[in-house]
Amino acid sequence: MGVKTPMDLVIRGGTIVTVGETYVADVGVQDGKVAQIGGQMSADREIDAAGKLIVPGGVDMHVHLQLAEAQPEGAPPRMSDDFYWGTAGAAAGGITTVGSMTARQPGEPKGLLATLEHAEADALQNSLIDFTLHPIIDDPSPDIIAEIPKLLDAGYSSTKTFMVMHAFDARQNDYVKAFEAAGRNGILPMLHCEDANINHHCEQRFHSEGKSDIRYYADSRPPYAEAIATARGISLARAAGSPLYLVHVSCADALAEARQARAGGQRVYVETRPIYLYLTRDLYEEPDGAKYVGWPPLREKSDIEGIWDGIVNHDVDTLCSDHAPWTLSEKLDPDLSVGSFRPGMANLETLMPMLYSEGVVGGRISLSRWVELTSTNAARLFGMFPQKGTVAVGSDADLVVWDPDLKRVVRGEEMRSRAGYDVFDGYEIQGWPTHTISRGDVVFENGEIVAERGRGKRVIRGPHGPL
Amino acid sequence: MGVKTPMDLVIRGGTIVTVGETYVADVGVQDGKVAQIGGQMSADREIDAAGKLIVPGGVDMHVHLQLAEAQPEGAPPRMSDDFYWGTAGAAAGGITTVGSMTARQPGEPKGLLATLEHAEADALQNSLIDFTLHPIIDDPSPDIIAEIPKLLDAGYSSTKTFMVMHAFDARQNDYVKAFEAAGRNGILPMLHCEDANINHHCEQRFHSEGKSDIRYYADSRPPYAEAIATARGISLARAAGSPLYLVHVSCADALAEARQARAGGQRVYVETRPIYLYLTRDLYEEPDGAKYVGWPPLREKSDIEGIWDGIVNHDVDTLCSDHAPWTLSEKLDPDLSVGSFRPGMANLETLMPMLYSEGVVGGRISLSRWVELTSTNAARLFGMFPQKGTVAVGSDADLVVWDPDLKRVVRGEEMRSRAGYDVFDGYEIQGWPTHTISRGDVVFENGEIVAERGRGKRVIRGPHGPL
Amino acid sequence: MGVKTPMDLVIRGGTIVTVGETYVADVGVQDGKVAQIGGQMSADREIDAAGKLIVPGGVDMHVHLQLAEAQPEGAPPRMSDDFYWGTAGAAAGGITTVGSMTARQPGEPKGLLATLEHAEADALQNSLIDFTLHPIIDDPSPDIIAEIPKLLDAGYSSTKTFMVMHAFDARQNDYVKAFEAAGRNGILPMLHCEDANINHHCEQRFHSEGKSDIRYYADSRPPYAEAIATARGISLARAAGSPLYLVHVSCADALAEARQARAGGQRVYVETRPIYLYLTRDLYEEPDGAKYVGWPPLREKSDIEGIWDGIVNHDVDTLCSDHAPWTLSEKLDPDLSVGSFRPGMANLETLMPMLYSEGVVGGRISLSRWVELTSTNAARLFGMFPQKGTVAVGSDADLVVWDPDLKRVVRGEEMRSRAGYDVFDGYEIQGWPTHTISRGDVVFENGEIVAERGRGKRVIRGPHGPL
Amino acid sequence: MGVKTPMDLVIRGGTIVTVGETYVADVGVQDGKVAQIGGQMSADREIDAAGKLIVPGGVDMHVHLQLAEAQPEGAPPRMSDDFYWGTAGAAAGGITTVGSMTARQPGEPKGLLATLEHAEADALQNSLIDFTLHPIIDDPSPDIIAEIPKLLDAGYSSTKTFMVMHAFDARQNDYVKAFEAAGRNGILPMLHCEDANINHHCEQRFHSEGKSDIRYYADSRPPYAEAIATARGISLARAAGSPLYLVHVSCADALAEARQARAGGQRVYVETRPIYLYLTRDLYEEPDGAKYVGWPPLREKSDIEGIWDGIVNHDVDTLCSDHAPWTLSEKLDPDLSVGSFRPGMANLETLMPMLYSEGVVGGRISLSRWVELTSTNAARLFGMFPQKGTVAVGSDADLVVWDPDLKRVVRGEEMRSRAGYDVFDGYEIQGWPTHTISRGDVVFENGEIVAERGRGKRVIRGPHGPL
Repeated sequence: MGVKTPMDLVIRGGTIVTVGETYVADVGVQDGKVAQIGGQMSADREIDAAGKLIVPGGVDMHVHLQLAEAQPEGAPPRMSDDFYWGTAGAAAGGITTVGSMTARQPGEPKGLLATLEHAEADALQNSLIDFTLHPIIDDPSPDIIAEIPKLLDAGYSSTKTFMVMHAFDARQNDYVKAFEAAGRNGILPMLHCEDANINHHCEQRFHSEGKSDIRYYADSRPPYAEAIATARGISLARAAGSPLYLVHVSCADALAEARQARAGGQRVYVETRPIYLYLTRDLYEEPDGAKYVGWPPLREKSDIEGIWDGIVNHDVDTLCSDHAPWTLSEKLDPDLSVGSFRPGMANLETLMPMLYSEGVVGGRISLSRWVELTSTNAARLFGMFPQKGTVAVGSDADLVVWDPDLKRVVRGEEMRSRAGYDVFDGYEIQGWPTHTISRGDVVFENGEIVAERGRGKRVIRGPHGPL
Repeated sequence: MGVKTPMDLVIRGGTIVTVGETYVADVGVQDGKVAQIGGQMSADREIDAAGKLIVPGGVDMHVHLQLAEAQPEGAPPRMSDDFYWGTAGAAAGGITTVGSMTARQPGEPKGLLATLEHAEADALQNSLIDFTLHPIIDDPSPDIIAEIPKLLDAGYSSTKTFMVMHAFDARQNDYVKAFEAAGRNGILPMLHCEDANINHHCEQRFHSEGKSDIRYYADSRPPYAEAIATARGISLARAAGSPLYLVHVSCADALAEARQARAGGQRVYVETRPIYLYLTRDLYEEPDGAKYVGWPPLREKSDIEGIWDGIVNHDVDTLCSDHAPWTLSEKLDPDLSVGSFRPGMANLETLMPMLYSEGVVGGRISLSRWVELTSTNAARLFGMFPQKGTVAVGSDADLVVWDPDLKRVVRGEEMRSRAGYDVFDGYEIQGWPTHTISRGDVVFENGEIVAERGRGKRVIRGPHGPL
Repeated sequence: MGVKTPMDLVIRGGTIVTVGETYVADVGVQDGKVAQIGGQMSADREIDAAGKLIVPGGVDMHVHLQLAEAQPEGAPPRMSDDFYWGTAGAAAGGITTVGSMTARQPGEPKGLLATLEHAEADALQNSLIDFTLHPIIDDPSPDIIAEIPKLLDAGYSSTKTFMVMHAFDARQNDYVKAFEAAGRNGILPMLHCEDANINHHCEQRFHSEGKSDIRYYADSRPPYAEAIATARGISLARAAGSPLYLVHVSCADALAEARQARAGGQRVYVETRPIYLYLTRDLYEEPDGAKYVGWPPLREKSDIEGIWDGIVNHDVDTLCSDHAPWTLSEKLDPDLSVGSFRPGMANLETLMPMLYSEGVVGGRISLSRWVELTSTNAARLFGMFPQKGTVAVGSDADLVVWDPDLKRVVRGEEMRSRAGYDVFDGYEIQGWPTHTISRGDVVFENGEIVAERGRGKRVIRGPHGPL
Repeated sequence: MGVKTPMDLVIRGGTIVTVGETYVADVGVQDGKVAQIGGQMSADREIDAAGKLIVPGGVDMHVHLQLAEAQPEGAPPRMSDDFYWGTAGAAAGGITTVGSMTARQPGEPKGLLATLEHAEADALQNSLIDFTLHPIIDDPSPDIIAEIPKLLDAGYSSTKTFMVMHAFDARQNDYVKAFEAAGRNGILPMLHCEDANINHHCEQRFHSEGKSDIRYYADSRPPYAEAIATARGISLARAAGSPLYLVHVSCADALAEARQARAGGQRVYVETRPIYLYLTRDLYEEPDGAKYVGWPPLREKSDIEGIWDGIVNHDVDTLCSDHAPWTLSEKLDPDLSVGSFRPGMANLETLMPMLYSEGVVGGRISLSRWVELTSTNAARLFGMFPQKGTVAVGSDADLVVWDPDLKRVVRGEEMRSRAGYDVFDGYEIQGWPTHTISRGDVVFENGEIVAERGRGKRVIRGPHGPL
């Protein structure tokens, strides 16, 4: 007794939740890492977590953050959050690692690594928490494909591709080569599956029939367009011999395609997004329905139930935000119509609280499953585990002290995102972080960001791992 | 009693088989049509069909016959059968109507109707039996799409498209428009479903691995490439609101896609081809395996069983030959390899006898189902029913007197096709026609063609009909 | 010319519809059979059918008609129609052959053949049209199983079994033996598939929760109870090596089980019933909802759509009435509750007109498909084809002259059934018979029964045939 | 620095593997529990685990151990292992908790709790490691059902039922009540799914055809008998509102039923058994094929692949042994035939090593997934987590030091089971335990059992938990 190991920080008396366990123990942090669990410890900084949970910080591998640099005059409007505001919202919601989609900026030289370097420099100056980047492949030329095997050496192990663009169909064969190059090199291709042709055909038809307002939006991108694109993506990955990560699966039929492929032994992984768990297409009947536009659209109640079944039964692997914030006036711009509505919305700050409230408090999932969906699985799949995604000796001290009883009503104007509104405005949520800790530093505490812009580091990732 | 109606031709005492019935009655023919069934009749020409079947002549809507005109010097080799030799083989095998795939000839002006007119003129000079043509759409430009609604007025109610070409993917959206134009105008799009990219990727990989001989052929065009293309085609037709006719379905997984769509109420029709009922990919292990190259390739035993299940349970609608004959030396050309083997083979003369022998004599299907698969369903789907496809008062007297007991061994060199070999060489078949009658004219009798080149007429088709 | 064959009856100028064809021709009848189609004929009795259809009389193989004999005092109420009233309604609705479920009467000796003989004697005295009987097997003892092979010699080729009774589960092994005995002897087992235990458990739970009125009826016999019983029945038939005929399939999930089995090559046949095509469970919310009680219950709109898909795409083989009429006061008896509502209703007279009106006039199915579902397929499956089920030379002259334009509103009190009401009361139907002809005798003409009780004969059936 | 917390036992330098993580840290044990991970510790007993794994002891919830008490003279032969020999084998194979199926002994009073008490007393005297018991319900009378809610108070949260017995079918409704009573009280019903009738029918047919030797065994219990029983069990649990645990799923079609139910949100859990991962029915062709008889039988190669897919993709939740050992002479008793072969075999000692060798070394699954399948999931489902099933502060120190490189050839005669042979005799396995620790006591060390009979305790279980 009396023998206490000295630590930088001790979190006392909380209930540690990992993907594997839920148990009460003290956690000692030293040099930014978890150093000891259980036993006797002392530290200058202690956090009393009695009655609270200690969970691994969330890992959201699907966000769209903007570079902070100035835009040329006359450039089209951009999404509202740069790496600072985006990661501030993340930290406030319990997320400690983000992965941002990274496209070549106008005028930038071609090349995945060049684009990544540019974005990394920006993020290092602005990000509050650790981050990684996903290079978008929109031109699978031989030069670009030749760069894929070099990504892992640079600490990246993913790519992002959009079937939703016509270019995908026209160059499908090159995309298969890109998948193949990824699969051979420990890199996970992320794929947005909606059939460009079916969507385009439906949009054209609606326009020709004078049905271009928001009420027709959901039908302009029908579920079967997503389901068949999902099936195609799976078949192309099969030909390529690569794994495949399906972003934001929104409907029961698309999920069924993934399930079928997994049943047959293919390495297919499924992400969904909060809006597909809580909102239905009925919202498009409302005057401000365009607030809720995402790609894919909101679906039927039966789809929500199907996606929840996947949340419960492990058919869904990760919940990511697809954080893509616009101000309300940009979303509701009256010049927009079917085919041009701006997709995306802010979602980083409420992702974990909503799933806690509806999933855990609602009795649908266990604490461990909540952690798995919001943190552990993403860390595993994207080559960051066990550095990120768990509470274990040797892991980064990316920890969240979570108050399971705290209730708060969502108010977009109080949130970090510069979007200024939230699709869940007015929802009462039970369960919020009181402290968010990144590599041992408290960055968010009792409602306030308490760390500086630019402290976040890029996570040097290893190869894509299995679940 | 003594009261007998005079006819041009009476077929006496045979067992009439239609899709609906099997019964013994006399058939009277006048002016090229069936005029009376049962009752008392007399005629100068009588055929004694006692112990034999009287069936509607076969309707094979998927053949590739060449124009008879001379080819420019240095042109690549062509398939071996023109309209004369092709339809002679058809008649010898009990088929009285063919539908030939019609592509624009080099130098011909662009335009579906222009191409059809040219081909019709050739066929009228050469065909022994009635025929129709399917315009191939390989360039779905606005001009071509504008022609589709005019096809029906010209007596055509089908189009043909190939997903197996890269062009399909690049112009998918235009093809959806072509389907839509067809669907709105009573026209049935026929679609060859194999994924160009997956096949191309597999071929390239095999070549790069030194696996380019015939043993690798089946794996270079895998079943999942056909299944996913089938699923895509079905989804595109759904977007277009058109029916869809799937040519030569070869594997259980592709058939399952069609079944699923039909279960959901979509108008999807399924054709298969004799080789997928009788031959497996094991033949590609033989030295002359290239004889058996078709698109898609021969499949596994489990696929044969799956296609037979469809033959029995009505998941398959038609059996067509995809008659595409090459001489043996052209098929076995040593310069060919994975990616370049010549697809296709002669199949008109044995189509009906093989299915009779293996299906009816083999106890798998009824006489009526045999007639349905080889005649009635094709006539219905392609707008020729009840002119063709049945034995009924008022229908064309396209009749076959079938000897259910006659056994003969297949010998390609004795057959009409100029290919000179047959993939079923050496098979003993039970059940062959003794008389083939086209619009009341006996054109084939006891082993010999007994009519002249050029007597066949084009069938003026009505709109695509349901089953 | 001038040469006319004399006939007993000629129907002139109608459009003959069979499962295979639709064409205009005269039909000559002699000695109760169709003797000639087309050509020149004369007769004393002629019917002008210009502008009308000539279709094969309907074949409804699933009715419950009562023996006419007096009941002992104090016996429970019986269904309202004996063979006279039932077959009068049938004839008025275009049906010329019925198959009645035949159970041992109290006090009768045990034995399938004894029971059949007793019922046959009754039916011969009362039936207006031809009939057959299905022996109910509710005690698969060795003696009973030993009788099964003798059924065919007696002209019967079917049995009926109810999974819906607990006895089925307790003696499942004996039922498999009964299926096996049937399958080996050309006999088709008919099976009512609902899981007795699940239904019983649900009923008990509802009662214990005070939910015993008609609003809870549909949930007391849920679709999954039917689906799993269907799957079980199919597996038991597979073990027995027998074909299987599923009576009154009511929901999409049960139909999917049948489809799956057929896709795998098993001989499974599907009957549905009019109420599952037109009515939903919402009717149980109405005060007189108990009028609509059947086994299984009415289902959801999505089930109706699923069954219609099967009507269109050939997953459903026959439409039969399950005619089981009760008077309205018996149906609405206030002593009844969940678990005791009386199942069944009158449906013979409107079966063909409703499907014509909603299916053919409604544009969902062809004339031939209507005939197939209401006549031909039943005749084939139950060993009566081509004697019944078609219009062909040599077949029984069971013919209906159908006015495709005649509209009439359903009024139960005007109908032949002694039930006195109809579940379709108030529906306007387009398409009704003007003449119903049984073996050449006109039995119904322009709204009136014009033949005598007891003219119907038992059809001596051959073995169960395939489709 | 020099500050070290004193412990009873420290395991140094091993790689800890849990369902969530794999990381290097020291583990300190005090009072039979894990007290500290990481940090500085000292102890009298230390184990050097450098280069080795530290994994949670296996949890095998499906074993059949015999009571040690003497049997009456003339009793039939019993399985060979009592709680001592069974748990000795378990410990030698890295398993630290077993759940044994517990049936009423002849002469014992009726009652689940009475039977459990009797068996517990025996197990407490003999077991080397901790254990629990599953009461077998073979008579779901009201008295028995009334006991189910009391099980949890007594520390039990599971029941076991056999569909494979005819009694199940006859009393299906009572079994639904038993499921319901379980589901309402936190108790998990375990169900053996094979259709008694189909199996019995097949056995009888084979006997009648003279096909009663071991070569016909697999076909006497066909996969579809398991698949339909699985579907039924799932439907009955749905009616009862209870979760369901499917024991020893052996074939792809049964697994598909479970997958489908889970996709629809039902709480269905899947166990498989080692023999279905490694052995095929071809072994029944061998002279001593009866060695390999289990219920269900060994299946096809495609089934093995399907079950492995489930191991990889999380469709399978647990791997349990169904340890049911017989001596070789009892297995090969020449009086046995189809219908009477003795099912079961020893499997406790090789369960974890085989899956490590074939799964982890074979590259199919991760270390964490191996732990999940053999320990964590069973502990969760059966109400013992996190006391058992993980390596975490506060959990029982049921730990295994695993040498990932140790290779040994299986030799049944050297193993603990009194069966004297092993179905994997001659297999070389890589990966074996060097130390097995139960509540802090080393019970197996370097090939030897080093603890005494009777030290095992019964685990007092909480309610069934989700995954």
